[in-house]
Amino acid sequence: MIEPIGNSMIKLPYLLFLGNAPDQLSAKVAQGISDWRPENCIGQFTLDGCQADVGLPDISLQRGRELGAKTLVIGVANRGGVIDPIWKETLVAALRLGYDIANGLHKLLRDDEDLVAVAQQYGCLLHDVRLPNRNYPIANGEGRRGKRVLGVGTDCSIGKMYTALALEKSLRKRGAKATFRATGQTGILITGAGVPLDAVIADFMAGAIEWLTPENDEDHWDVVEGQGSLFHISYSGITLALLHGAQPDALVLCHEPTRQNMRGLTDRTLPSLETLRDAVLPLARISNPSCEVIGVSVDTHRLSEAEADSYLGQIEQNMGLPAVDPVRNGADRLAATLV
Amino acid sequence: MIEPIGNSMIKLPYLLFLGNAPDQLSAKVAQGISDWRPENCIGQFTLDGCQADVGLPDISLQRGRELGAKTLVIGVANRGGVIDPIWKETLVAALRLGYDIANGLHKLLRDDEDLVAVAQQYGCLLHDVRLPNRNYPIANGEGRRGKRVLGVGTDCSIGKMYTALALEKSLRKRGAKATFRATGQTGILITGAGVPLDAVIADFMAGAIEWLTPENDEDHWDVVEGQGSLFHISYSGITLALLHGAQPDALVLCHEPTRQNMRGLTDRTLPSLETLRDAVLPLARISNPSCEVIGVSVDTHRLSEAEADSYLGQIEQNMGLPAVDPVRNGADRLAATLV
Repeated sequence: MIEPIGNSMIKLPYLLFLGNAPDQLSAKVAQGISDWRPENCIGQFTLDGCQADVGLPDISLQRGRELGAKTLVIGVANRGGVIDPIWKETLVAALRLGYDIANGLHKLLRDDEDLVAVAQQYGCLLHDVRLPNRNYPIANGEGRRGKRVLGVGTDCSIGKMYTALALEKSLRKRGAKATFRATGQTGILITGAGVPLDAVIADFMAGAIEWLTPENDEDHWDVVEGQGSLFHISYSGITLALLHGAQPDALVLCHEPTRQNMRGLTDRTLPSLETLRDAVLPLARISNPSCEVIGVSVDTHRLSEAEADSYLGQIEQNMGLPAVDPVRNGADRLAATLV
Repeated sequence: MIEPIGNSMIKLPYLLFLGNAPDQLSAKVAQGISDWRPENCIGQFTLDGCQADVGLPDISLQRGRELGAKTLVIGVANRGGVIDPIWKETLVAALRLGYDIANGLHKLLRDDEDLVAVAQQYGCLLHDVRLPNRNYPIANGEGRRGKRVLGVGTDCSIGKMYTALALEKSLRKRGAKATFRATGQTGILITGAGVPLDAVIADFMAGAIEWLTPENDEDHWDVVEGQGSLFHISYSGITLALLHGAQPDALVLCHEPTRQNMRGLTDRTLPSLETLRDAVLPLARISNPSCEVIGVSVDTHRLSEAEADSYLGQIEQNMGLPAVDPVRNGADRLAATLV
């Protein structure tokens, strides 16, 4: 499989830092990495009182280095996205052992003078994956070999990253060439590369996605992580830039059937899947006239299994498309439409 | 008329600096300011050999200050958008006289150490209007009083700024309350305020436009400068963020009938006006369900007068909308639909 030149960002493998996580949910970034890229992980490192466990061996910083870990990933979030003072001793010790550190929190490592000084002294890198780490070109819109599939949602935070990772897994299981392309900070930490699209300068959004999804083997699928929603007016511009930069051949519609309002917009309800399909397809065909909607991915975790089955069956009947919950069902039926 | 708090950026009035402009076209920024905001201009200042004249009194830097000028605007462009070394003496002299300087070129004043030092010494501001000069919020999508009209194009660089300025003029002529809202550097220099949308961080694009077009009198029109095109894949995300941030009540479709390709994209042709209308209206109605397309603005400068009349007549017949070339005809017929 061709990996695009320069698309690697963070050195692998990782040691995952869970800190003093008060519960499992606060370590969900580490959990995501451990779930989707166990081969990238040497182990987990916790502080006293940590209540999270992502199922990896507990090892020390020193032992991690001996086993080849190159980057300590802050895999835990806390209120406000700040760097907990209790973590600082660990981060400094890690730099002294030669680890790079990767961070997806709002608070930036580069804004901590102590960490910057130690990193410089030991020649280590501080990765703040919420910010771009390079300049991107303006999109040229040219076609390129290889196939691309993108998730588009009726709202933000509706399972687009999970869908893409599940689809990559299903494609690979079938022996197809597939690469998840991260466009947000969690995805970047999971894979060690990607574009933090929401932090890119407007003029370069589509160009950043062209860079992220370059020419590839004719039968290779880039599985591109979706962002925002065409119907979420705070972020719709990001979604359209992603759609036009990725030039997808295939789209997966993502939905959560019980959500009452667009995320953060109390007055606005979600569009139907049919409305999303009818809006997105003509826009997608501006950049790729042969683009098709190939399936639907639904987050059914608020439904019973019977309700979920019934809901998915109804979508299949109404829209004539395979509909899955990738958590309950996996994404094999979506992958089957691509291969 | 209510002017939004904090929406002023550059101190008025201006002295326009034409430098050593080799021809009239290279002073088109100064011409635009002089054409659309003569009341903002004290005069023009030229160097030896200047071949441009924007029709304002020629006055010296010193005299300009005596007459009240507060900002020297670089109203001339040269190849590569750099600051000509020949201009430097003038810029330094202006700062010493207490002028702020405003610049829309790619090359930034703030990157010139000499200018920064003199500006600091004399307490003057250096405005690089290609970059945002503040942080913008994330869009909240809430409705707000007042009316908004936005130009949307079949391509980039297709007369959207000119259309908006002509429409503001026609509205004011009728006694209506109207404010041009600049979203690009030339518009910002013309009015002294605005958002350089193409340089805003992705997450804040729509929020920047909400900030630019705030609540206003019920019968006030913000005439918002369009950017990019939904059909231009390099910039379409910017266009959609603008559409959803502005929540326009009215749209004007902008077109140039002889253009063969999307600007900078040799393989891609322009959509028809009907295709643009059908694409933009459902997207606009996500943020403002009562949005309507109210007219068409065509750049007919490559057509004869007879051809232009015939073309505009045909559009009116086909689309049932007033169609004007604002350069040939003004925008009164568009304004009439709004009042």
